[in-house]
Amino acid sequence: MSKRLLILVVEPDPDRAQPIADGLQQAGGHEVHIIAEQSGLARQVADLRPDLVLIDMANPSRDVLEELALASGPTERPVAMFVDRSDEDLTRRAIEAGISAYVVDGLRPERIKPILDAAITRFHIFQQMRAELAATRAALEERKIIDRAKAVLMKARGLDEEAAYGLLRKTAMDQGKRLGDVAQQLVMAAGLLGR
Amino acid sequence: MSKRLLILVVEPDPDRAQPIADGLQQAGGHEVHIIAEQSGLARQVADLRPDLVLIDMANPSRDVLEELALASGPTERPVAMFVDRSDEDLTRRAIEAGISAYVVDGLRPERIKPILDAAITRFHIFQQMRAELAATRAALEERKIIDRAKAVLMKARGLDEEAAYGLLRKTAMDQGKRLGDVAQQLVMAAGLLGR
Repeated sequence: MSKRLLILVVEPDPDRAQPIADGLQQAGGHEVHIIAEQSGLARQVADLRPDLVLIDMANPSRDVLEELALASGPTERPVAMFVDRSDEDLTRRAIEAGISAYVVDGLRPERIKPILDAAITRFHIFQQMRAELAATRAALEERKIIDRAKAVLMKARGLDEEAAYGLLRKTAMDQGKRLGDVAQQLVMAAGLLGR
Repeated sequence: MSKRLLILVVEPDPDRAQPIADGLQQAGGHEVHIIAEQSGLARQVADLRPDLVLIDMANPSRDVLEELALASGPTERPVAMFVDRSDEDLTRRAIEAGISAYVVDGLRPERIKPILDAAITRFHIFQQMRAELAATRAALEERKIIDRAKAVLMKARGLDEEAAYGLLRKTAMDQGKRLGDVAQQLVMAAGLLGR
């Protein structure tokens, strides 16, 4: 939290809004936008594109919690949620919904900074794992489609594997396309042509 | 936290050990082992194989924090760490080391349960993502090694791709081995034989 962040705060209780804003001020002079109505969250998130969302809800129902989690975009930015009371089920749902910090009865101005520090780090670690998983899955899918494209060429043109791969690669280079994309297009075309 | 857990607590301060044990008792009658010496943690973890580790440290240095994180085995079980003071750097290091809950100035008996609920859920989500990433990586590696094995067979035996794959698969079935393992062994043997 060394850099100045744009933080969107959802705080229905006006008496609690000021201490939270003060806490965030102490935590590093962050720019704070406070909204009282949870119903405006999704639109405000889309407009402001905040670096972090902080939600304070005395006692959310399961539906409200899941709505808030969804509206705050927890895969795009860290989301910290403070509740006064909770149970095991709600805690689990909040974390499964991607909330980076779910804190029961812990909203005191001096505790905000370490909680947000933790939420931000946790968010980045998750983000990194998600990206790694997506990249590995994409590599596997690409390999599969290249294999299928090679098989199509080997059959249609009577080539061996090496020659089929070479032809795919040359086509990709000549057209300035990615090998996986050329393979994808070839497999689709071969399907259409009944080859 | 519905089931009864075996919880290993590291608490150097004897005055704080009792309230923590009481808090865990309230949280679900968990079986609690308390050790005062952080130096015994790795051995105790190996002996007890606890379901969860809870560490309370007033003011850990960076080295102590990393030692504790390592000794508690945070990829095997949830680890919750409570500290009295912290900074951004320590928070980041704790979470990067795999600590499921890193709580600054928040150890009150009534807050233990929601914190451990959150730590457990977070641990399971991470565990699941780690497993998914490992499985996807393994599938990609297996595909690569099968491709190499096919190429070895195609060259050595003058087979087309389909026949090479069929031969690999038949060999695996006949020997009751996994296709990836047979491919791995073939590639290694071909390397040794200079083929």
